[in-house]
Amino acid sequence: MLVCSRCGREYPETFRLTCDCGGTLLVRRNHFSFFGSLLPYLDMRRYLNSLPVGGNYLPPAVPAITPTAALQIGHVIGLFKLEYLHPSGSFKDRGTYVTVAKLMEEGIREVVLDSSGNAALSMALYSLPAGITTHLFVSYNTMPEKLSLLEGLGAVLHFVDGDRMAVHEMAVGFAEREGVTYVSHWLNPYFIEGTKTVAFETYEQVGVPDYVLVPTGSGTLFLGLWKGFTELKDMGEIAELPRLVAVQASGFESLCERSPLTNSLADGIAIPEPPRIDEMKRAIKETNGLCVSIEGPETVEALNWLKRAGFLVEPTSAVVLAALWKLVESGEIPDGSRVLLPLTGSGLKLT
Amino acid sequence: MLVCSRCGREYPETFRLTCDCGGTLLVRRNHFSFFGSLLPYLDMRRYLNSLPVGGNYLPPAVPAITPTAALQIGHVIGLFKLEYLHPSGSFKDRGTYVTVAKLMEEGIREVVLDSSGNAALSMALYSLPAGITTHLFVSYNTMPEKLSLLEGLGAVLHFVDGDRMAVHEMAVGFAEREGVTYVSHWLNPYFIEGTKTVAFETYEQVGVPDYVLVPTGSGTLFLGLWKGFTELKDMGEIAELPRLVAVQASGFESLCERSPLTNSLADGIAIPEPPRIDEMKRAIKETNGLCVSIEGPETVEALNWLKRAGFLVEPTSAVVLAALWKLVESGEIPDGSRVLLPLTGSGLKLT
Repeated sequence: MLVCSRCGREYPETFRLTCDCGGTLLVRRNHFSFFGSLLPYLDMRRYLNSLPVGGNYLPPAVPAITPTAALQIGHVIGLFKLEYLHPSGSFKDRGTYVTVAKLMEEGIREVVLDSSGNAALSMALYSLPAGITTHLFVSYNTMPEKLSLLEGLGAVLHFVDGDRMAVHEMAVGFAEREGVTYVSHWLNPYFIEGTKTVAFETYEQVGVPDYVLVPTGSGTLFLGLWKGFTELKDMGEIAELPRLVAVQASGFESLCERSPLTNSLADGIAIPEPPRIDEMKRAIKETNGLCVSIEGPETVEALNWLKRAGFLVEPTSAVVLAALWKLVESGEIPDGSRVLLPLTGSGLKLT
Repeated sequence: MLVCSRCGREYPETFRLTCDCGGTLLVRRNHFSFFGSLLPYLDMRRYLNSLPVGGNYLPPAVPAITPTAALQIGHVIGLFKLEYLHPSGSFKDRGTYVTVAKLMEEGIREVVLDSSGNAALSMALYSLPAGITTHLFVSYNTMPEKLSLLEGLGAVLHFVDGDRMAVHEMAVGFAEREGVTYVSHWLNPYFIEGTKTVAFETYEQVGVPDYVLVPTGSGTLFLGLWKGFTELKDMGEIAELPRLVAVQASGFESLCERSPLTNSLADGIAIPEPPRIDEMKRAIKETNGLCVSIEGPETVEALNWLKRAGFLVEPTSAVVLAALWKLVESGEIPDGSRVLLPLTGSGLKLT
């Protein structure tokens, strides 16, 4: 079922973004065991038993099990999870995979979203083979290379003259007017069901880390990790949750104090008012976590370090390493800690 | 040990490209069981027991276990293996991973190669964290985006005024003159040790396919699949080898009859005189395989089909699907067959 995080109201597992009270929704199921008979799947289908989809339709480009590489960083162990090795080049494919499977189950064949970034690319890529038409509302300042790739994937582009908020309003207006399903990955509870599998994989690969540092704007990965580790605890697989650290871009903080400087590099998390903010606060509280804000120059330094380590990622991915350096230096993360650092987006598309 | 495919002479497992007789080398070991205790590794390290490296140094950006997606194509089942989901965006990372581990074991800290394509990108990415200096000999007509990416990864570029053969000769001359190790993935036996793991994974994921269609220029993947399945047979895991189909680019055939038309799209396999040609012929003979040649327009058609299926790959990857269509239409591949189609390189870097 879907459960409202604000008022607790329950809904059946249909495609739905919010509660009637305006609160955000999460999927709730009773999971009794981690695996069923799916261990032979060496890809995301390994976790199908824990996902709210029937399996009648599954997208062909299934997300990968991503490697987790351990590297000594000073006196702590960084566990770099290569979440950019997915069909569209970002972790979003995990959320999109579950979402598109759900949309197909529901017979939804036309969707609209307000994004021109990784979420849009992922949705366009997965919608095309499913026969779902994707309307994308984008601003005129979107890079032409991105637009031609999205158009090549059959997305219908709608240009909006205005800022991000204007784009959002036009998309929602179009959805209401045309009766087309608005698919916001910020709100969509099925998206988080996909991203929670990062926690499952991590657990299989390296056990439970002490800390998990996550690039956090809308919180789709942050909450997925929280939900995934929580489900592992509920299943009796693990005893304690790792401490979750939300890593944000300066100038766009929603959990940390808002800083006057703007980190314009980490555009994937430049989301100052995420709708799932209450759930994010709850995740920090439940895991004794914290929030760290990262500036532009720190992002560049971390990005260069990652490149030299063999990880070709986009700037948004680099903030977690900058945050690790900061927390190690301040003594917040003690020596000997094992720290998970999901690297969320590929650097290849930027070349 | 290393064994010459031409004269049978044996060498110890040091880094070496050819036999004194000029023949090509393959690694030979006795493998008694498929897995040791490595099953918990959900990445390429899963197969370390079958690889000729000690494990003292392993590159941090470990290649992934790539998903294998089954799709009905007419009356046969296409098993698409997403070999582009690796750190540098191509299957080459498997070969590079083993190669760089070996180079480090041998204390080799400076290498030269004549490539500006996927092999160069892979080597540059893996050399950087290992502290190995990579000299790349490239022609002036290499795309500037590629060059800046390679330079950003610390590769030392040497420009050559001339065709591919001139570039090759300059690289070999440099290696001899400066005493720098020439790392040709066409010849390097450790590269094939890496690519053979595609067979291991396939076996774990979907068993033994009836046919394996491989983009084939230098034959590094083709021979890796042949060697991997052969080792599985030697270990008693499988009873029969799949039939190997070398898919080549028209105008650049080495196994099929050379055609007058030139397929300039599939540049990854535009290699008319591969040094391992005798081994490739042997693999075709041993597996009752064959060769298929694909033209430019067929490549485009297959590339578009793949995009619509959710697979964002480069043109070279698409030839295997074009070959499948051809072999199904001619009746060469019978109804009900299960056909492995490795998709070798990412389309993201082209955007």
